[in-house]
Amino acid sequence: MKPYDLIIRNGLVASASEMGHWDIAVKDGKVAALGTALPDAAIEIDATGKIVLPGGVDAHCHLDEPTGGPARMADDFRSGTLSAAFGGTTTVIPFARQMKGAGLAEAVEDYHRRADGKAYIDYAFHMIITDPSKAVLGEELPRLIDAGYSSFKIYMTYDDLKLNDRQILEVLDTARQEQALVMVHAENADCIDFLTERLEARGLTGPKFHAAARPPLVEREAVHRAVAYSELVGQPILIVHVSGAEASAQIAGFKARGLPVFAETCPQYLFLTKDDLDLRHFDGAKHICSPPPRTSADQQEIWNGLRNGLFSVFSSDHAPFSFDSAEGKKVAGENAPFRKVPNGIPGLETRLPLLFSEGVGKNRIDLCRFVKLTSTNPAKIYGLFPRKGALAVGSDADITIWDPDRQVTIRNDLLHHNVDYTPYEGRTVTGWPETVISRGEIVIVKSQIAAEAGRGHFLPCARFEHWKDLRA
Amino acid sequence: MKPYDLIIRNGLVASASEMGHWDIAVKDGKVAALGTALPDAAIEIDATGKIVLPGGVDAHCHLDEPTGGPARMADDFRSGTLSAAFGGTTTVIPFARQMKGAGLAEAVEDYHRRADGKAYIDYAFHMIITDPSKAVLGEELPRLIDAGYSSFKIYMTYDDLKLNDRQILEVLDTARQEQALVMVHAENADCIDFLTERLEARGLTGPKFHAAARPPLVEREAVHRAVAYSELVGQPILIVHVSGAEASAQIAGFKARGLPVFAETCPQYLFLTKDDLDLRHFDGAKHICSPPPRTSADQQEIWNGLRNGLFSVFSSDHAPFSFDSAEGKKVAGENAPFRKVPNGIPGLETRLPLLFSEGVGKNRIDLCRFVKLTSTNPAKIYGLFPRKGALAVGSDADITIWDPDRQVTIRNDLLHHNVDYTPYEGRTVTGWPETVISRGEIVIVKSQIAAEAGRGHFLPCARFEHWKDLRA
Amino acid sequence: MKPYDLIIRNGLVASASEMGHWDIAVKDGKVAALGTALPDAAIEIDATGKIVLPGGVDAHCHLDEPTGGPARMADDFRSGTLSAAFGGTTTVIPFARQMKGAGLAEAVEDYHRRADGKAYIDYAFHMIITDPSKAVLGEELPRLIDAGYSSFKIYMTYDDLKLNDRQILEVLDTARQEQALVMVHAENADCIDFLTERLEARGLTGPKFHAAARPPLVEREAVHRAVAYSELVGQPILIVHVSGAEASAQIAGFKARGLPVFAETCPQYLFLTKDDLDLRHFDGAKHICSPPPRTSADQQEIWNGLRNGLFSVFSSDHAPFSFDSAEGKKVAGENAPFRKVPNGIPGLETRLPLLFSEGVGKNRIDLCRFVKLTSTNPAKIYGLFPRKGALAVGSDADITIWDPDRQVTIRNDLLHHNVDYTPYEGRTVTGWPETVISRGEIVIVKSQIAAEAGRGHFLPCARFEHWKDLRA
Amino acid sequence: MKPYDLIIRNGLVASASEMGHWDIAVKDGKVAALGTALPDAAIEIDATGKIVLPGGVDAHCHLDEPTGGPARMADDFRSGTLSAAFGGTTTVIPFARQMKGAGLAEAVEDYHRRADGKAYIDYAFHMIITDPSKAVLGEELPRLIDAGYSSFKIYMTYDDLKLNDRQILEVLDTARQEQALVMVHAENADCIDFLTERLEARGLTGPKFHAAARPPLVEREAVHRAVAYSELVGQPILIVHVSGAEASAQIAGFKARGLPVFAETCPQYLFLTKDDLDLRHFDGAKHICSPPPRTSADQQEIWNGLRNGLFSVFSSDHAPFSFDSAEGKKVAGENAPFRKVPNGIPGLETRLPLLFSEGVGKNRIDLCRFVKLTSTNPAKIYGLFPRKGALAVGSDADITIWDPDRQVTIRNDLLHHNVDYTPYEGRTVTGWPETVISRGEIVIVKSQIAAEAGRGHFLPCARFEHWKDLRA
Repeated sequence: MKPYDLIIRNGLVASASEMGHWDIAVKDGKVAALGTALPDAAIEIDATGKIVLPGGVDAHCHLDEPTGGPARMADDFRSGTLSAAFGGTTTVIPFARQMKGAGLAEAVEDYHRRADGKAYIDYAFHMIITDPSKAVLGEELPRLIDAGYSSFKIYMTYDDLKLNDRQILEVLDTARQEQALVMVHAENADCIDFLTERLEARGLTGPKFHAAARPPLVEREAVHRAVAYSELVGQPILIVHVSGAEASAQIAGFKARGLPVFAETCPQYLFLTKDDLDLRHFDGAKHICSPPPRTSADQQEIWNGLRNGLFSVFSSDHAPFSFDSAEGKKVAGENAPFRKVPNGIPGLETRLPLLFSEGVGKNRIDLCRFVKLTSTNPAKIYGLFPRKGALAVGSDADITIWDPDRQVTIRNDLLHHNVDYTPYEGRTVTGWPETVISRGEIVIVKSQIAAEAGRGHFLPCARFEHWKDLRA
Repeated sequence: MKPYDLIIRNGLVASASEMGHWDIAVKDGKVAALGTALPDAAIEIDATGKIVLPGGVDAHCHLDEPTGGPARMADDFRSGTLSAAFGGTTTVIPFARQMKGAGLAEAVEDYHRRADGKAYIDYAFHMIITDPSKAVLGEELPRLIDAGYSSFKIYMTYDDLKLNDRQILEVLDTARQEQALVMVHAENADCIDFLTERLEARGLTGPKFHAAARPPLVEREAVHRAVAYSELVGQPILIVHVSGAEASAQIAGFKARGLPVFAETCPQYLFLTKDDLDLRHFDGAKHICSPPPRTSADQQEIWNGLRNGLFSVFSSDHAPFSFDSAEGKKVAGENAPFRKVPNGIPGLETRLPLLFSEGVGKNRIDLCRFVKLTSTNPAKIYGLFPRKGALAVGSDADITIWDPDRQVTIRNDLLHHNVDYTPYEGRTVTGWPETVISRGEIVIVKSQIAAEAGRGHFLPCARFEHWKDLRA
Repeated sequence: MKPYDLIIRNGLVASASEMGHWDIAVKDGKVAALGTALPDAAIEIDATGKIVLPGGVDAHCHLDEPTGGPARMADDFRSGTLSAAFGGTTTVIPFARQMKGAGLAEAVEDYHRRADGKAYIDYAFHMIITDPSKAVLGEELPRLIDAGYSSFKIYMTYDDLKLNDRQILEVLDTARQEQALVMVHAENADCIDFLTERLEARGLTGPKFHAAARPPLVEREAVHRAVAYSELVGQPILIVHVSGAEASAQIAGFKARGLPVFAETCPQYLFLTKDDLDLRHFDGAKHICSPPPRTSADQQEIWNGLRNGLFSVFSSDHAPFSFDSAEGKKVAGENAPFRKVPNGIPGLETRLPLLFSEGVGKNRIDLCRFVKLTSTNPAKIYGLFPRKGALAVGSDADITIWDPDRQVTIRNDLLHHNVDYTPYEGRTVTGWPETVISRGEIVIVKSQIAAEAGRGHFLPCARFEHWKDLRA
Repeated sequence: MKPYDLIIRNGLVASASEMGHWDIAVKDGKVAALGTALPDAAIEIDATGKIVLPGGVDAHCHLDEPTGGPARMADDFRSGTLSAAFGGTTTVIPFARQMKGAGLAEAVEDYHRRADGKAYIDYAFHMIITDPSKAVLGEELPRLIDAGYSSFKIYMTYDDLKLNDRQILEVLDTARQEQALVMVHAENADCIDFLTERLEARGLTGPKFHAAARPPLVEREAVHRAVAYSELVGQPILIVHVSGAEASAQIAGFKARGLPVFAETCPQYLFLTKDDLDLRHFDGAKHICSPPPRTSADQQEIWNGLRNGLFSVFSSDHAPFSFDSAEGKKVAGENAPFRKVPNGIPGLETRLPLLFSEGVGKNRIDLCRFVKLTSTNPAKIYGLFPRKGALAVGSDADITIWDPDRQVTIRNDLLHHNVDYTPYEGRTVTGWPETVISRGEIVIVKSQIAAEAGRGHFLPCARFEHWKDLRA
């Protein structure tokens, strides 16, 4: 009997710190050996000329998440995880959202029902806490953290999501006691409301004014406040979707002081600017997300932050609202004021190709950092490492074989999400995932699906204590 | 025939980004496979309860280096590499020093003669450029860089070593053209002379005044100047032996601006303070090194820098001058003024145990960062990776098996260098290397030497272009 | 008939930028001439050996201000202005406080009734806005600013005073349109509540825990937020009673970026530390004020800020609550928890002597800066210059003749406020006001009162536009 | 007999901190009284609609200074002080330059001979130290400082002027002991040489490459080094002619740390950019000065620094080399490489009109700051206050009556220097000096000269101890 189930040979293998040519042997869904001249396996894959990476971990995406209103997300766990897999991602961590007035455990249960039997790849859950009652903080949250839901997001803006400052402090304090990680959407709600009302009073309601209502200061202030609370309580936080220079500089200063603040950024802050909100007709609405894309100078700072370790994580923030849909961007009508347009853009499938092509391909980051940002670090931070995020012996055999030379012009037709547009339509990238393996099972091969929906497992996450060294 | 020469089983293996339990198989001096259930090898080592690390790379040490005066280094390549190996280090990079008025190539040739046939472990050379004549910069240096001597140190202080500012600019410019890395000893010579003369005029010449003659400002100014020149020329530099808060903050600011400046620190800045220069009799001279140790607050900042990625490299700066010797600290007499005392302290063998015990053991850094700082990063920065600094498939099988629980009280008697003291006498550490393997050959086993001098090879170094991502 | 009513001869006269020996002639209550050899006047004062200064302007003090609870201020306009005059101050600017649910104009009217006929010296009003309804912002405030009430304070803490963030933005926006100045009490209410509850839960309620409930971060965060809102709206603000290094550094950074943020500090941050809250019995309550006094290192930073122009204004923040009184510090009982102790300490009369003695007398600041901080700058900032704050021709003849050599040991017995203690009991200062003149009328002479209550006038203040240059 | 010699009535009088309408009476060359309704004087000047200011103090200008080569300055004390007076300046402080190998006292004596009997207005001397021998530092300098030469400039660049770093330290140390002030020309000579040679090697020698050879980094580095030495020694310094954002930020940082570093800037950094070096023919040479003008963004930072107190002094750095002259810009020929073109541009007469028109007239600074920067602060810093720099009682009656409404288009024909061009040709300004009075004597009236050359006195300067508060 052959000692291994599957071997990938002759590829350039990369981890977060090393790369080289060796073979990877898989047994029982796990990496069993790395080496050369390994004995034959049942399945042999020749990766000559290809790059072999730990599958991507997309730690910030929204799938089938209830919106609390008439808008509906176009992707559920089936289409979402399929799209992720086609993009080289083998783990997603979407959000179980607590509704105000309701419990947190019921949100998690409901979300399991939404996920069950649908996923093509493995998944964990973050939670979104919108109503941190005593019962939630005192009972539900500790129990849930213990059960493998060890991270949650809080919002400083959006009426139906945001916590007030006192609630933020209480949530952080609970997280500290229970060793969870808190993700923060940092924008100042009062400033946004103030500016939005003034813009509306002057009739300035087109999509491009979305950016005017959320200038960089709005994000910078919220970052300062969030980190101050983190410092007061002594609890690490992760600032999600950092958009530009001001917030970056704020975070860099705090990190230099040694505070445990982590940062994430997303493709939209590298590849879009606020000019993309200023398109003919209503098309700018396709690029409404929060924080909004900034300027090309901000893009440069985001690249610097990816390179120099300011950012630990690169996620998609996939928020699947179709454009030409009464459940999506047009939920309030054809030319609704920006305030009524659902926020968010899709990106699950394009995350890795965009960063690979513009980052690795253009020498802005090297391959090890690419792995670190897109796979290893999110797995470490959210308690999935070394099961995910690594191709070490014993890790899950979640493997993406990448064709570094394949040129693809991105068209929404090529993608597998259910959203009716991609913000990156027409952009040509070099490098694309060719084969995607999850727990040793080939899920995608040569752009064809080779597995069944429902094979993906839920992954409980370890408490936020496990890895002390999460820098850069 | 067994497929592998040697297997280490059951240890906790750590790289710069991952750790886990797997076995390591060695064939022909290289890592051949990582896995579990690997077939038997000729030599089997059980590392249960032990940690298996890539052997240390000590990228800053002085062995048998001519001093240009009556002082002589106590360690040559034989004792020096033996001491290094006993301390868990499997690669050293000492310095071939150009003498003023002489050529650089002849310094390298001379240094090969000093090394040949003596080393227990592998070694590369940095060069020290003291006389950057047109011939040196225009002919010798490009040829030497091409031949594998791709890094060199320059000094901003010491009469017989220092370059003037114009020379520094020329050297950096040549390095840029040839893709070499420049290491900088950053202290302001004029300030030191100015202060030293004033101290001497007041009769303040004891060892403790060595620190008074080199306050933090002296280092901070030189760092600013060196980085400014680096920025002007567009050439990366590495600031060696950063001693405290002021220089650290200066470097952190430059790094935040995206400048390619790397930093190194050493055990003396974690474990000594300037009070250690103020001992009875002449004993303070044992701790005279430059920059001098600072305060306990500075030590804290150095720890922060190790943790947060400010420092890429942790080296010994081993400078072996015996204390009670007319060729060492007492070269100018029993109670010579500090100006005449040879600078430098030994530390090749204690580098890893000290950092492991106080860093990993006390949760200041984790095991991955320990590997990164002491092995992976120096190998990457100096062009030896992935041959050295990794336990990846294809890497040289340079392996240190570490006993994390062994308590050792450091005594100079225990050490294998030829220096007659250690600055860490009497300090107890937890964790000590047990078995040290170089290219698959067991060099040290259970504190006994198991190999012959002369087995160490010279390692040519790749140009400084190879690895783009050297941060933190 | 003599051309002048009064002449002060032979003193050392100082303004914010100059000092020298000349005589000052007064006519009809105003400075009529500066010179030497001026003709005789009806009243001649020989100031040989004395310093002649523009009378102090105390731009932050509380007199007869309703508290909205059982506590009562011990000083009304009679005792308060008398105490101020004895301390060398000739103008005070206390606060007309709007009560929540009530109007702003009625607060101003009520406050005029409290002041009428009582004051010994001139006074203007700041307003305190606690309820910025549409009517207040849209109608009352513009009318009041136009009528000479051109500055107002807002609070970021205290339940019965604080505005929420949206209200702060609206208030700043109105101020911008109407050219008023906004003073901000910058402490984060939510953090204070969070910490206070936790301290109380552990039974830590003594006066010293007042400081623990308001650490520097609480102030720094609020400063950042207030300045961010100021920047967003484009409206200058003045941060009152800055207490230490963290808030100072925050403000210095903003000023360096060119933002129009001004800062004030007070004697308590120079002469008290948090250790003064940790006295036997309940005596620490005497030093409960907000922000609390910090450490001696913070005191040093406050001195630096006074010297280098970070602070534009030095005020008393006189808040007259008696210690041994059921209307004062013991309003909630003998050993009430710190949360229930009225905040604030007295200081109207000691403001100038303390700063003169420790600042000018000890060469920390020079005489010109003393004048600038205590008189000229507050007059400029609040729209009273050059009527007040200067001894220029045409200015009101508000003059303090200072005896620079008089040593006084401060005892509450010596002071003229109605508070039953002074925080500076027993402290000896050198330099004390000897003669105090208001609009040419001698109010105090040789420590005796020489004028009648009720002679003080209300001063309408110009809009905040008048003086562009208010730095340092 | 009339009590006063001269009275100026009805003008708007401004000092560094105050302004208002009052009359100024002069007696025996000094200000005798300020007031209204002062008795008649022999000479009455009606300044209705005019502004009355203390005469300008130009603390950085070069007149009849030996260059050590074939170039010659076009202005001596006669034309230079005449031009200054026409521009509203009543005190100049040019430089007595030590020649290498010669003494300092002889330089001062020689310079007195050059000045004697020629000046229209008063003058003091700075010294330039180029050869700080033991004799100079140990004997000459203390004696000269004692005799009223209490400030001197040192250069960090120019072969025939620059000190090496050790000399700078020694000079600073002597200054500290003797309470003198050290002015520093901060540019890094080695960087300039390095870049110049590379430019020349590529044939890039036109005037515009002068700026390329001295990028902002070259100035920033030298500033850091100079301030570091100042900090080490404990001696205040003043950085002359700061040119842009990088040096400004460096200085701002040091000032924020409390170091006694002062800064000066000049008109060329407000009104020229490096594009002005890139003119047809050789005309760019007209704008060759060091540091070179920068960009419009740098100009903005210089304006910020003038407004926020970063700069204490605004000087002309008048360096009178004619353009079309074999003793001036063309000393090395018609199209000499930039390295051989004398550095410096004229500006004595245009300094005040330019700053008034663009600064005060366009609300960038107010009138008090204008006085502070151009008159009061230089007088204070260099030990001439309150004799100069103020219109206080007892001050010298050096008075400029300014017509704020007069529009003048600057033409070199209008100016009174001997240079054959002005860099500001064709620029229209609003505001021009109308009447200039020195020690009570009318020197200029309605654009006509009314006094004789030789009436100007030498002014000994007080040691640098006199005024502690020189900020902002």
